[in-house]
Amino acid sequence: MYPTKAYAAESAVKPLGPFEFNRRAVGPNDILIDIHFCGICHSDIHQVRDEWGHSLYPMVPGHEIVGIIAQVGAQVKKFKPGDRVGVGCLVESCRECPECKEGYEQYCPQPVFTYNCKEKDGKTLTQGGYSTRIVVNEDFVLRLPENLPMNATAPLLCAGITTYSPLRHWKAGPGKKVGVIGLGGLGHMAVKIAKAMGAEVSVLSRSRKKETDAKRLGADHYCATAEAGTFEKLAKTFDLIICTVSVDVDWNQYLNTLKRDGTMVVVGVPPKSPTVNAANLIFGRHSLAGSLIGGIRETQEMLDFCGKHNIVSDIEMIPIQKVNEAYERVIKGDVKFRFVIDIASLK
Amino acid sequence: MYPTKAYAAESAVKPLGPFEFNRRAVGPNDILIDIHFCGICHSDIHQVRDEWGHSLYPMVPGHEIVGIIAQVGAQVKKFKPGDRVGVGCLVESCRECPECKEGYEQYCPQPVFTYNCKEKDGKTLTQGGYSTRIVVNEDFVLRLPENLPMNATAPLLCAGITTYSPLRHWKAGPGKKVGVIGLGGLGHMAVKIAKAMGAEVSVLSRSRKKETDAKRLGADHYCATAEAGTFEKLAKTFDLIICTVSVDVDWNQYLNTLKRDGTMVVVGVPPKSPTVNAANLIFGRHSLAGSLIGGIRETQEMLDFCGKHNIVSDIEMIPIQKVNEAYERVIKGDVKFRFVIDIASLK
Repeated sequence: MYPTKAYAAESAVKPLGPFEFNRRAVGPNDILIDIHFCGICHSDIHQVRDEWGHSLYPMVPGHEIVGIIAQVGAQVKKFKPGDRVGVGCLVESCRECPECKEGYEQYCPQPVFTYNCKEKDGKTLTQGGYSTRIVVNEDFVLRLPENLPMNATAPLLCAGITTYSPLRHWKAGPGKKVGVIGLGGLGHMAVKIAKAMGAEVSVLSRSRKKETDAKRLGADHYCATAEAGTFEKLAKTFDLIICTVSVDVDWNQYLNTLKRDGTMVVVGVPPKSPTVNAANLIFGRHSLAGSLIGGIRETQEMLDFCGKHNIVSDIEMIPIQKVNEAYERVIKGDVKFRFVIDIASLK
Repeated sequence: MYPTKAYAAESAVKPLGPFEFNRRAVGPNDILIDIHFCGICHSDIHQVRDEWGHSLYPMVPGHEIVGIIAQVGAQVKKFKPGDRVGVGCLVESCRECPECKEGYEQYCPQPVFTYNCKEKDGKTLTQGGYSTRIVVNEDFVLRLPENLPMNATAPLLCAGITTYSPLRHWKAGPGKKVGVIGLGGLGHMAVKIAKAMGAEVSVLSRSRKKETDAKRLGADHYCATAEAGTFEKLAKTFDLIICTVSVDVDWNQYLNTLKRDGTMVVVGVPPKSPTVNAANLIFGRHSLAGSLIGGIRETQEMLDFCGKHNIVSDIEMIPIQKVNEAYERVIKGDVKFRFVIDIASLK
């Protein structure tokens, strides 16, 4: 048992505050990680505030975890103390269903999420990365590329894989036009990754406010969707659109910017279910699809890809004591583009 | 100019009645077809009654046309008088856009539909198959398989290709589980074609009323969706769903019956745009797609496929004088499964 310092939410209506608990003993296949940094994902806020329902308290959020291995279990073969590693949204799965067997643990019907979830024992709550250490089965631990700074790598574990997975699955690459709706934590990763894959990338954002940033991040084009005529001009443009925003948007307008056989992939759930006019699917054989993070194998592939292409997140570092303030800024979209907590501030 | 007898709608609120007009002279690449049979498609009714807007009158409906070639233009190479041929939903397209060049004329931005449309001259109205003859450019004429009865082949030109195209595109075949929503004109073709492709086919219909028919048509399973527990039992079942009904259905329930990476394809436009909960796309990487009839090359491929597998529509023959009555029965779903007009009744 490892005493662990953390920040936790005690209920949906309280700010996060200091919290102490014990991590489990290191089993034969477990790894004890000293956490160095943890990213702040918008979903942390949704869950802390019980906006998706069924939140479990006390809750230590955080699933963009990076650190250094402090100890490995007797049967661990792939890792050793001192290795730079990461943990994303999943720390276990059933390992027996077709999804698990094919490396799609994220679609397992019994996934164990990194926090706000119960362990396989059905009792112990999982606790996330706003904490000094974590014990995770080696099969859910990722190896970090040596060339990337550890703090800016943290957001790859959720924002990175959430965008990499659909870009890879729907074959973003040379000759393909990719639209990215929204330029926040997810959107800015989508731009960098799609560019590195060789695609021609457009950012679709309401105003011109983020144009300079979009271009700096590598976007080829910037489309201000609130400007008159934008959607008309974009008709039949994109092979693939990644919709990274969960606010209420009119999917129909974007579906019409797809080429024949184009796909729009949503990675977030808007609070109110949008309507879809079937004509916008039928005329052009368009697809509207969804995608959830990525499996463990694919997350490692994404990290290796980012290492090769020198891709990290643009981050703003904060001490844990500023986390509640940071949450308010995330909600306002006032961060470029991901907050990362320096866990040294907890020690 | 060829004097032609027909049944036409003079306005959205009048029943169809006798009408005479002239077909154009046969140009060098044109074919004059003596029409023998024409299927009644639900979309005929929508257009006659101006339910989609912008209907053009007088309107001779009908885009499931079969007949015998009476005359060919001087430069026609592929056909000769006496050939058994068909005409579907399209009689021309721009021939220059990427869609046309790749054989996807149905997605051309300037298609010329078989009726309720203007010819390329921008003036002459096209007129459909509830008529004694038609003149069509040879590139939009299809060859009928010799072994199939001509009357029951007519519905393949719309109901057949509308279901064949998505079944082929999304790879229905051995090892794949296909769900067909609705057992009407389109649905019964989807069952026959998906079975011939080697898929395991389930019919999804509200009540048990159509179970015997579904099994007779070759369906492996029948699911009465109004029965409690049906959707729970069907969770994660299908690789592909073809939604052939345009009434208001809850797409979300069906999306959850898809396996990981499954696709639900809609081929009709419900009067009210359904809502889609993004979670039903995200959890399982599901796709919701649309598909519109098929291109000319693919329509020929479908006819050849049906010839090889001895597939035709189940039809009820009527004389043209019964067309208005037949419309009412189509609306009530009271036909097994397609009305076909015997054009001899017009002569």
